[in-house]
Amino acid sequence: MKSSIGEAIQISLFGESHGEAIGVVINGLPAGIPIDETYINHYLDLRKPKGKISTSRQEQDKLHIVSGYFDGHTTGTPLCIVFENSNTHSKDYHNDKMRPSHADYTANEKYRGYQDYRGGGHFSGRLTAPLVAAGSIARGILEQKGIVIGSHIAKLQDIEDLPFPEQETDALACLQQLNQTYFPVCDCDVATQMQTRIEQLAKVGDSAGGILETMVLGMPTGVGEPFFSSLESVLAQLLFSIPAIKGVEFGLGFEFCNFTGSEVNDAFYMDNAKVKTKTNYNGGINGGISNGMPLQLRTVVKPTPSIFIEQETIDYQTKENTTLQIQGRHDPAIVHRARVVVDSVIAIGILDLCIQQFGPTWVGV
Amino acid sequence: MKSSIGEAIQISLFGESHGEAIGVVINGLPAGIPIDETYINHYLDLRKPKGKISTSRQEQDKLHIVSGYFDGHTTGTPLCIVFENSNTHSKDYHNDKMRPSHADYTANEKYRGYQDYRGGGHFSGRLTAPLVAAGSIARGILEQKGIVIGSHIAKLQDIEDLPFPEQETDALACLQQLNQTYFPVCDCDVATQMQTRIEQLAKVGDSAGGILETMVLGMPTGVGEPFFSSLESVLAQLLFSIPAIKGVEFGLGFEFCNFTGSEVNDAFYMDNAKVKTKTNYNGGINGGISNGMPLQLRTVVKPTPSIFIEQETIDYQTKENTTLQIQGRHDPAIVHRARVVVDSVIAIGILDLCIQQFGPTWVGV
Amino acid sequence: MKSSIGEAIQISLFGESHGEAIGVVINGLPAGIPIDETYINHYLDLRKPKGKISTSRQEQDKLHIVSGYFDGHTTGTPLCIVFENSNTHSKDYHNDKMRPSHADYTANEKYRGYQDYRGGGHFSGRLTAPLVAAGSIARGILEQKGIVIGSHIAKLQDIEDLPFPEQETDALACLQQLNQTYFPVCDCDVATQMQTRIEQLAKVGDSAGGILETMVLGMPTGVGEPFFSSLESVLAQLLFSIPAIKGVEFGLGFEFCNFTGSEVNDAFYMDNAKVKTKTNYNGGINGGISNGMPLQLRTVVKPTPSIFIEQETIDYQTKENTTLQIQGRHDPAIVHRARVVVDSVIAIGILDLCIQQFGPTWVGV
Amino acid sequence: MKSSIGEAIQISLFGESHGEAIGVVINGLPAGIPIDETYINHYLDLRKPKGKISTSRQEQDKLHIVSGYFDGHTTGTPLCIVFENSNTHSKDYHNDKMRPSHADYTANEKYRGYQDYRGGGHFSGRLTAPLVAAGSIARGILEQKGIVIGSHIAKLQDIEDLPFPEQETDALACLQQLNQTYFPVCDCDVATQMQTRIEQLAKVGDSAGGILETMVLGMPTGVGEPFFSSLESVLAQLLFSIPAIKGVEFGLGFEFCNFTGSEVNDAFYMDNAKVKTKTNYNGGINGGISNGMPLQLRTVVKPTPSIFIEQETIDYQTKENTTLQIQGRHDPAIVHRARVVVDSVIAIGILDLCIQQFGPTWVGV
Repeated sequence: MKSSIGEAIQISLFGESHGEAIGVVINGLPAGIPIDETYINHYLDLRKPKGKISTSRQEQDKLHIVSGYFDGHTTGTPLCIVFENSNTHSKDYHNDKMRPSHADYTANEKYRGYQDYRGGGHFSGRLTAPLVAAGSIARGILEQKGIVIGSHIAKLQDIEDLPFPEQETDALACLQQLNQTYFPVCDCDVATQMQTRIEQLAKVGDSAGGILETMVLGMPTGVGEPFFSSLESVLAQLLFSIPAIKGVEFGLGFEFCNFTGSEVNDAFYMDNAKVKTKTNYNGGINGGISNGMPLQLRTVVKPTPSIFIEQETIDYQTKENTTLQIQGRHDPAIVHRARVVVDSVIAIGILDLCIQQFGPTWVGV
Repeated sequence: MKSSIGEAIQISLFGESHGEAIGVVINGLPAGIPIDETYINHYLDLRKPKGKISTSRQEQDKLHIVSGYFDGHTTGTPLCIVFENSNTHSKDYHNDKMRPSHADYTANEKYRGYQDYRGGGHFSGRLTAPLVAAGSIARGILEQKGIVIGSHIAKLQDIEDLPFPEQETDALACLQQLNQTYFPVCDCDVATQMQTRIEQLAKVGDSAGGILETMVLGMPTGVGEPFFSSLESVLAQLLFSIPAIKGVEFGLGFEFCNFTGSEVNDAFYMDNAKVKTKTNYNGGINGGISNGMPLQLRTVVKPTPSIFIEQETIDYQTKENTTLQIQGRHDPAIVHRARVVVDSVIAIGILDLCIQQFGPTWVGV
Repeated sequence: MKSSIGEAIQISLFGESHGEAIGVVINGLPAGIPIDETYINHYLDLRKPKGKISTSRQEQDKLHIVSGYFDGHTTGTPLCIVFENSNTHSKDYHNDKMRPSHADYTANEKYRGYQDYRGGGHFSGRLTAPLVAAGSIARGILEQKGIVIGSHIAKLQDIEDLPFPEQETDALACLQQLNQTYFPVCDCDVATQMQTRIEQLAKVGDSAGGILETMVLGMPTGVGEPFFSSLESVLAQLLFSIPAIKGVEFGLGFEFCNFTGSEVNDAFYMDNAKVKTKTNYNGGINGGISNGMPLQLRTVVKPTPSIFIEQETIDYQTKENTTLQIQGRHDPAIVHRARVVVDSVIAIGILDLCIQQFGPTWVGV
Repeated sequence: MKSSIGEAIQISLFGESHGEAIGVVINGLPAGIPIDETYINHYLDLRKPKGKISTSRQEQDKLHIVSGYFDGHTTGTPLCIVFENSNTHSKDYHNDKMRPSHADYTANEKYRGYQDYRGGGHFSGRLTAPLVAAGSIARGILEQKGIVIGSHIAKLQDIEDLPFPEQETDALACLQQLNQTYFPVCDCDVATQMQTRIEQLAKVGDSAGGILETMVLGMPTGVGEPFFSSLESVLAQLLFSIPAIKGVEFGLGFEFCNFTGSEVNDAFYMDNAKVKTKTNYNGGINGGISNGMPLQLRTVVKPTPSIFIEQETIDYQTKENTTLQIQGRHDPAIVHRARVVVDSVIAIGILDLCIQQFGPTWVGV
């Protein structure tokens, strides 16, 4: 019944795609944190639709900090961010034909027809804008502590990107590069291939999904709470709240099935007085707690369900079978836009668990 | 900082592998639910180690309901279940050499050496016994409402089981059969192959993982809460709290990457006045809310990290590289035992969300 | 670390007295509840400062429902209400001299000087405006279920109002009358006396407190959760969050000290097939659970600390003793304005516990 | 729906008066805290019934730490304490006649007859034994930080104890003395008077209540969270969960009504480079946050409802008026036993808020 998440840091989202405004309330941010709006806007920009591979709906997403922020710093009391909705075409939406694989039908059943159906209402991907704003504040705090998050599109249909570099310094450079790039892949040629594929699909009114791979460098050891707030549990709960995410795996993930224990146990060794593991098949997590190695995880983003190809469905009113030709403005792929949302919720989850483990003074302001 | 989970139904675990006792407190169970101890013991039995494919540690796991239960029914106040630990060989454990891919190192860092290190302490798979007890109570309630949960080992190394039957009546029979079977696969021949493989690995001191596939039949529509308590989010948080689970996917999961929207959107149609989808690529969930189709998800269980083959590691005290020869009694595979834990936490999650959606009277006692 | 409260219904407040806006996010409201803005505005109006007995700061308090509301009904997703701050005189506030008995010093210590100090920031009574908006929605739902809340100023200094009428029909009429009255007392003559006293104090720059007595009629039996969410616990937590409330008592309250068990036990009897008690010394609550009798409780509101008489205090910067002459616009009494805040949080608490007990369908929309 | 409380420190109670066992799970205790069982047993002893002023039911209350404790220290994972019930006379209890002012009727309505009615079940004062155990662990931690809690019976009927000493060193000595005394009053003569009064009431089968006054010395500044977790809110929620508590007031409490702002504002001044207030009418709390002055609060304990004088009531089964002659063993007063429960929950609340404010390292182990 609640739309909030987190223990030390609590996030509460509100709003609908075509309502007046959307926003987020963040509780638990320590006082005295400087906020760089340029930094947040950079990540909001990475989330915006751009070019032929995205919807033509252009929202300003103007950052509007309404409370909890004074004289350039957080106050320690609830910080609220509001984005006004401006570029809405509500007439494109009707509450009669269920769009397949959308939340139209399920929300209608859940709320007995009272939900705001326009543009997916509260279940719209638009709600991820305030999530990115909140996540960027968290990300900024983590970066001050040397924790850097980055993701690339590892796979889009049959097109695969290069893996993250093995050396940590190379990996760090790669993450920083990705965080400056709108279409996040390690290999430029692959970027072109993937974008071309999306444009081809857009032309025929179809859509694509993809797999995001995320790395977090600089993770402190000891982060993750028993029993139900393991590092994997907390990140997965956040990740699966992002619309279109249908799978999450850590380290080797589903590939673990194909190996024996002796092949995939990560042997410990001392590296200049620091404990490390020779391999990182567990993705930096043992027993639900970070082990100081890079955090590695993958999420799958399903193909956007809003396609322009005619689909079979049902008419709500008549309860009869019918066909649907979706109107409006839609993304032929959202995997590139979802990237920064994935990074954002990971930042929120890690910050929450770090403050639980180390206390609010860990933030160091 | 908390070891509890849930909103309408809250579960709080306590205990360590080699401590005096382990247990669970369940809050929010409606009053008047009859509890069938035989039913719970059946599922506890499916979790027990048996034969050559499991550890030889034999715990009685005697169900002991300490509170919240009176005259054969739940009272509505907190129900506490305790299991005493009896068959412990604590001398097999020392807090000096970190076992690779276990929680030894991370817990030691997190708790600065104060954790109970014997047998993994609070991070032991043993904690899943009270989880199965709690889950079986939830499962019993769901079955009264026509909701049936079942899982099989879909894949163990290169050996694959048959998929679930397509027809719902066949699928129901299959789930019921699986729930009566210690080694849960749809195809008997595959069972033999998988068990032989585990025995072979056990002989050489190695271990195997596997992929579990779960189906839930009879799901009501409208279950799952915005924004951070989507059906996927709630189940994933619970599933990732189970030791050794490293991946969770719903419906097509990571395979979504390989298809276009038009290929994997689930078209709606009317089936005898009931809304259904022609395919179920989304695994019964749209927008984080159940759509009435069977729930389908997969989890990966990594190979047991406790292998008998010598491994490289570090000595805690000297901080020097060393090798480790694990002693004690360990499972060459836990995927078959993890099955009932997976089903149990799914039952807990679904019951919690159903009561949030429909209220405590939905339980119908 | 969190600024939210509630289980089935969750309330999250944000904003500062002199910031851009203040507001509230309400989670868990069932879908389909019609909202009557006139009804909410009526209660917001009762909270506004009026006449010589209040501050001259005039805020419009224009109700602005930003989300969770569509086509005249709640949607079931988070409902956010925002009030813009307009009539602020921030120059009246400086962060140098601690105002005695205000949150200036404690907030400054807690947030290391980063708090928004203007007008009390997040600790201002102004935050009660969104609380009244949220509470009025809850109150409207309760009234549909026959639950009516009302309060009067039982005592202001030595001036005492008449008690609530003994007969339930008279009591109901009294509550309804109080809910229409800006200065809430049962006896008109007493109203004049109290207001005259406040005006006299205002003239000399001083202030008064008072005791509010609240009655809730139509309470269903069985409301209140063990162990820490007793009806008293939930209401007290909410009531003590209102600035200036320093005491809460149920039924006889502190007077219980002067009687024996045989004098104050409430004997049960049958009244037309309904269980009642002959007396109601326990204020309608036994064992933390409502017993169906009228809920009765009292809260004390301390005298407004913002007085114009010169006071001794400390200078933050120099850490030296000094005197303070408070400027700005302040209330010589807030007990009459606090009344509707008290009623509002009681409505929120009761609605939360009723939905926990009876489920969301109890609301009956 | 939940029986737990707290943010950084979470407490979950379970058990019934005449069930097998009662207990508590404590989450969030930092690792490495030494536990002195003698210390806890001392406070459990102060809660035990003794002499003619208490019930003759003698429970051993043998402390049994089941988990979260290893090698003399907390482990950081959930700490569970269990007390077995041994001295039960369940035959004294029947589920037919409602005991006035007990939870019999309300629990019966709430749980539709499924509650464990023996001895009040989960609503029995017996549940306060694990609460004292948990609270004593918290109290021990606070004492290491120089925070000392103590209470006396300020009033029993018309008999009043002396107030706490004004000087802080005298007050500290007084608290320490009270914490060693079974019947907690500052003035020995008053102790005799109060006990005589209770014995007189016991002889005629009647009972008494009383007012407890609590002081906390050594409080750090800045403790208490906005908006709904003010120091008053958190302590009041905990205090009102104790059976028989019907009123809570801070500082002057209800007496605030009789004064003007200029009379009761607490003026700040510098005392040897430390900020203090000349008076402490606000009981050490401004704006819901501790100001470093002694915390002062009062709670009222109603007369024990279990009296032996014949009372009017109803028969559950026949729904007819009848009379009731209570059997069994009961306390003619519980105010002296409630004292240590009050101190215990205050310790829990303060520890929780301190860890939220200062982080887990504040504990200093």
